[in-house]
Amino acid sequence: MQFPPPPTDKHELEEGLAFTPKFDAHGLIVCVTQEAASGEILMLAYMNALALDKTLETGIAHYWSRSRNALWRKGDTSGQVQKLVDLRVDCDQDALLLRVEVGGDGKACHTGRKSCFYRAVSPEGGLTEV
Amino acid sequence: MQFPPPPTDKHELEEGLAFTPKFDAHGLIVCVTQEAASGEILMLAYMNALALDKTLETGIAHYWSRSRNALWRKGDTSGQVQKLVDLRVDCDQDALLLRVEVGGDGKACHTGRKSCFYRAVSPEGGLTEV
Repeated sequence: MQFPPPPTDKHELEEGLAFTPKFDAHGLIVCVTQEAASGEILMLAYMNALALDKTLETGIAHYWSRSRNALWRKGDTSGQVQKLVDLRVDCDQDALLLRVEVGGDGKACHTGRKSCFYRAVSPEGGLTEV
Repeated sequence: MQFPPPPTDKHELEEGLAFTPKFDAHGLIVCVTQEAASGEILMLAYMNALALDKTLETGIAHYWSRSRNALWRKGDTSGQVQKLVDLRVDCDQDALLLRVEVGGDGKACHTGRKSCFYRAVSPEGGLTEV
């Protein structure tokens, strides 16, 4: 799939029904992944046009690994496959929200936790596990 | 507040209790904002060290506006002030999750909607309002 370039008209970008994802200078768009049933935020990752295309085509979340510089079908090795419930885009179309159902043991973080956001920051700047 | 640089040791970064946010080449870190009570994702924005410092100091969400290149206390003009319930960091400390309670009319999007993620992408690439 070819994604059309963002329209120059702000109203069209925000109110229109054309999907015109805005990729950054590295060809990436940021994605928040949320467990659809619980609302829990699982992770934050990036997609390039290929990963986004594969995600829409297969209904399974694909990301672009910035560290490995490679297409990454989440769960390929862990079994924690993310089945798309829906994919949403924000007002200015430079961020995506993936609402998913997780396969395998239902987790998303490579540290063995369900969510990558397992530490809270105290006002003084320390962390505590939540 | 000065934020210490990320440790070189991965285990320390992921399992440690030192908050070492990793800012990108533009000095920014990505933030997902979630309504704490409902779990609804409201918006995605960025913070620089100043915005993060102000957020921790005041308990009110501050962001860095990339379009205006300015510190942005969310809700200053709209009344949609975001009171921090907690702030979490992900495994590799390059993304933040803000869990908030929203003041004013409880909305977050400048288009007048509660959430910025008000359109779903169909597998064929069109959008529908959710």
